[in-house]
Order: sequence, then structure tokens, then C-alpha cells
Amino acid sequence: MTTPLQNDRLLRALARQPVDMTPVWLMRQAGRYLPEYRRVRAAAGDFMSLCRDPQRACEVTLQPLRRFALDAAILFSDILTIPDALGLGLYFEEGEGPKFRHPLRDAAAIERLGVVDTARDLPYVLDAVRLIRRELNGQVPLIGFSGSPWTLATYMIEGGSSRDFVRAKALLYGQPEVLHLLLDKLAASVIDYLNAQIAAGAQVVQIFDTWGGALSASAYRRFSLDYMTRIVAALRPAADGCRVPVILFTKGGTPWLEEMAASGCDALGLDWCADPGDARARVGGRVALQGNLDPAILRAPEAVVRQQVGAVLDAFGPGPGHVFNLGHGISPDIEPARVAALVDAVHTMSANKRQHIDK
Amino acid sequence: MTTPLQNDRLLRALARQPVDMTPVWLMRQAGRYLPEYRRVRAAAGDFMSLCRDPQRACEVTLQPLRRFALDAAILFSDILTIPDALGLGLYFEEGEGPKFRHPLRDAAAIERLGVVDTARDLPYVLDAVRLIRRELNGQVPLIGFSGSPWTLATYMIEGGSSRDFVRAKALLYGQPEVLHLLLDKLAASVIDYLNAQIAAGAQVVQIFDTWGGALSASAYRRFSLDYMTRIVAALRPAADGCRVPVILFTKGGTPWLEEMAASGCDALGLDWCADPGDARARVGGRVALQGNLDPAILRAPEAVVRQQVGAVLDAFGPGPGHVFNLGHGISPDIEPARVAALVDAVHTMSANKRQHIDK
Repeated sequence: MTTPLQNDRLLRALARQPVDMTPVWLMRQAGRYLPEYRRVRAAAGDFMSLCRDPQRACEVTLQPLRRFALDAAILFSDILTIPDALGLGLYFEEGEGPKFRHPLRDAAAIERLGVVDTARDLPYVLDAVRLIRRELNGQVPLIGFSGSPWTLATYMIEGGSSRDFVRAKALLYGQPEVLHLLLDKLAASVIDYLNAQIAAGAQVVQIFDTWGGALSASAYRRFSLDYMTRIVAALRPAADGCRVPVILFTKGGTPWLEEMAASGCDALGLDWCADPGDARARVGGRVALQGNLDPAILRAPEAVVRQQVGAVLDAFGPGPGHVFNLGHGISPDIEPARVAALVDAVHTMSANKRQHIDK
Repeated sequence: MTTPLQNDRLLRALARQPVDMTPVWLMRQAGRYLPEYRRVRAAAGDFMSLCRDPQRACEVTLQPLRRFALDAAILFSDILTIPDALGLGLYFEEGEGPKFRHPLRDAAAIERLGVVDTARDLPYVLDAVRLIRRELNGQVPLIGFSGSPWTLATYMIEGGSSRDFVRAKALLYGQPEVLHLLLDKLAASVIDYLNAQIAAGAQVVQIFDTWGGALSASAYRRFSLDYMTRIVAALRPAADGCRVPVILFTKGGTPWLEEMAASGCDALGLDWCADPGDARARVGGRVALQGNLDPAILRAPEAVVRQQVGAVLDAFGPGPGHVFNLGHGISPDIEPARVAALVDAVHTMSANKRQHIDK
């Protein structure tokens, strides 16, 4: 039925098993820094039309794999498909972040809100997953993803990106039960969404908690981590019966790694502020770690990129359970040649370090 | 000579000595949320004219002390007085952050840059410190402050506020020796600036490392913490021979508390993401801790403010060495009544908790 996987480095690293070289993929690896992406995006019209077109979403998902020896593909989509499917009217204005035509302005709007049925509401995502799996033909695993309930809630309440989360935090501190109702519905939606992606062929899933780091420690536990923990527990195995590893990424979440590691997830994504050796000491062997090169390093000369990749590999150490990634997504102004240098450096240097240890 | 200090709670807490109730001051406690501040600001003209006028700077420094039973005054000034004195031409556009007319655009500009001689270049700051001390008349201690070298450097290189620090990080990774030259000059300037504030009467100093949290762990050590450590070591005692306690505040610095605690400082400021109990466990008894209520809580109803103050006090625990503060500055839209509730709750609840323990 399913094509055997030719490159299982990511799955092995997530299971903290030995690998010949450190697997690498990059957040936002399919994106505007690639000229071929910009061409498909232009042909599609706007960003959401590209997300909603499975053929084109598949095409841009595969583009970085043709250039670089990446060890995983990640579904091209947006974290805000769920609120869009719930009727909030997602749109993008050029040069600005995402916006909603109908943000959640009161408790009544939250009470009226439904729960996503992915097969009915977001069939284009599942079509893209199936198509990408077929086109990948076992080359590398496919990562599916979702925004975390708290992160989705911030956009839905604020109406777009935010710096201080004034409305979301007013709800959190002023009417916590209303925020919990919203997070409840979003957690149910994310569970349905990720399980549908898994059923359609996603072999790994990542939960992006982009704004968890804006919360206090105790609010993070109650309003973000608890819901992600619930999601992790509700994920079903793949069609072949295999457990699908879950990566949890809270940007700014370094203060809380121990608690995140206890969520039941398989790996934690680290932003570039985390000290990898310290993170490893804090989570022990409970989870794999993913990260964490500062994406700004991709603007430096190639020799610096290679040197800094070496520093990150050294910081994580030779033990199992490291997936190389950036600490955040690639910026649109990055030269693809730098990404090529990064991927090559990860593989070459990590393979050399392993040979050195084996001797 | 000097008037005896009537309220030494802050100094005792910074020295990790017992206090009758937890001292409290608030970052940006003199500011736009107070109508009386807005009146003085309007009379002064622009923001920098207010900073440069010792009488008015003194007046706005004292305003919050007339309303609230705060345990410290903090010099009203801006963190960017040093770059302004170095000729970069600081200005503020309404509704936007600080900007420089002459940002540092190349290595030559950094080589040409001088070092601040505070008495010559920033006499208005020292005049304000002396005036405030006289007007305070021993009521509470006066806190002086400076931006950290890295934080000053980001504004000077970027030309203003930044989100991704593209230019500053390009320098950091591409020409680190040039950035070190700049940080060297800024560290010498900050040392002179803080020592001059101490000589003029500042009884505590805080170093604001607002953007240290944008760095990777290893870059933070080399490009921010090392310079702050050098500054702490170079600070002189007050005129009466007393050591002047230093508070280090790196926003987003929670991942690195152990290393910050080893800098020689007396206290660490915590942003609201830090878990106080965890922070205490990590730094042990080496330093006092300051913080860390999420400033967004000041938008919640008064009962919630009181309850959240209680939660922060409980999280820090009954031991010595806690200075209550926000995790970041007060926003201009906060109701002064909420600040009154906060200050009262800190004093009342912490005094009650102590009585409870004493029994």
C-alpha cells in the first residue's frame, strides 16, 4: 500500500535513535525566499488562494526538496486555516500580517463559534496532504501542523497580529471562563484537524505555539500548555498503526521546557534563545529536541553560516535526539545559497563528528 | 550631610535582609498613565525637552510617589541619552518609538564614535539626580539607570526600534570585531554614566537590557552579559562609602538566569514569563529577585489585580530578597486606580503573610 520511506532520519531522531547524520528541515522552508515559490504564488493570486489550491500547495511544498537535501517536507499551509474555516474571514494585506474580517469581539461571538470538521470544512488541506504524500513517493516524511489553541485565539480575538495582546489578555484576566470556552472549541478543532492530516498521510505533526511566550508562567500552563497536552493525548496513530510523533514549539517557551516535556509530546522545538546543552540537561532523555540556529545567521557570509551550524551541533552534543532547524522561520530576504550551505554543513559536519566518535 | 533614609525596604530586600512588607516600585512609574505627567510633558514640549529639564524631570519623578506608597523613586530619563550625547541626534515621532538622525551605518562611524564624559555631556541628568535627592529628602531611595551596551547598540545601528535587528545581527555575525569595538565604547560610557549618577546621589542602579532576549544563548553571553559584568565590576561606592546595589534586567533573559546571577549584580529583574519559584531555585541565595507581574493585569478589574498580586507574592515565597515590580513598564492606557490597588495589595498582603509566618 504505502511506499517505504527512503529517508527515516527525522523519525529516528524524534524517537531518539541513532542516525548517520543529523536530520534537518527548516521552518518556512517553502516560502518567499525561493524565486520559484514567488512565481507560483503570483500565478495563484493571493496567499490564501495558494493555500486553498492542493496542486499548487503541493508544488511549493516540494520546491525546497529539489534544491536542498532536506530530511523532511512540511505541508504548505497557514496556521490560521482553522479560524478561517470557523467563519472569521482570513485575509492578508500586502506587507502586513494576517487579518480577520470578523474577529471575536464579545462572549456571544465565542459562544456562537463552532468546532471544525476538517473533512467538511478544510478538504483542501487534506487533498494537499494526500497529493504531497503521493508525489514525495517515500523520499522523506511529511510533517503536518496546526497552530496551538492559544495562538489561534490571540489572532481571533485581536483580529490579527499583536504586540501586547491587549484584548486577549483582558479576556484572560477579566473573563477567564470565556477564554477557556474558546480554547476548548479550538482544542477540539485542532484535534480533529491533526487527526485528519494524520489519516490523510502526515507522518509527523508540529504544534506551533507562536505566542505562548507572551504569557506568564502560570497563564502559559493554564491557557496554552494544558490545551496542547490535551491535543497530544487525543492524536490517533497513522493508518499503518504507527504512532505519529508530535513536536511542540512554543516560541519564547525556554523558561518552561520541563513542563512542556511532560506534555506527552515526542520533541520540543527550541527557539534560538535556548542554550541547547542546558535544554538537554533540563529535559533529560524524555524528548528529542529540535532547533535552534538564529535565522539571522543566514544573512552572514557562507563561512560564518557553516561555523555557526558547527557551534549549534556541538552545543546539542553527539547524543541521539536532535533535529536541526532554525529557531524561527526563514525570512524572505535570505539567499537560497545560504540555505544550501546550512543543509550541507549540518549533514557533513554531523556525519564527521559521528565518525570521529565511533573511532 | 545626607538625610537619613526613612524607608529602606528596597535596600534591605536587595541585600536579602528581612523586611516588614515587600517593597514595590514599577518600571515607568513616572509616565503617561498619569494625567499630571501629561500636563508637565505638554508644558515641556517634546519628550527630550522634558528629559533635559532637571526641574521638570524631578517633578515627574516625584509625581507617582504623591499618589502611591511606592518604596523607591526612579530617575525620570530615557535609556538613549548616551547615544544622543554621542551625537546620534535622538528624536521621537508622535506615536512611534525613538529614532536617530545619524545612525551608525558603517565601521568608520563606529571608529569615529567617542566615549561619554557624563559631567561634560549629560550634566542635565546629574542635575536632575541631585535635585530629586534633595526633594525626596530621605523619603525613599532613588534608583538611577542606564541601557545596556547591547541594547544601546541595537538602537544606534538600526536607527530606532527594531523587530528582527537585521543590521545589528548582520554586524554581530559578519563583523563581530566591529560590534565589540562599539560595545567597548558603550560599556566605558555606561560605567562613567552610572558612576556619575551614583556620585550625584543615586542609591541603587538598574541596567536595562531590553533587547538581550533577542540574542542566542552564546551571543547573549559574549555581546551583552560580558559587557554588563564589566560594568558591574567598575561601579564605585556612594559618597558615604556604601556599596550601591545593581539590578540587572534582561527582558526575555529567563533562560540565562544562572549566568546573570554570576555577573556580580545584587538583583535580577524578571519579566513576567519567569516562574518565580523556578527562578529562585536556579539562582539560590546569590541575588535578590525583582518582578514580575504581567503589566496586562493592570487592565483587569481591581479584584483581579489584587488576586494576581497575591499569586506573585506566593510564587516568590516568604523568604527574603523580593522586590515587587511589573515584568515590564506600565502602559499609558492604565488607570491610576489600578496602580493604587496594586501597591496597596503588595504591602497589605505581604505584611499579612509575614505576620502569619511569625506566629
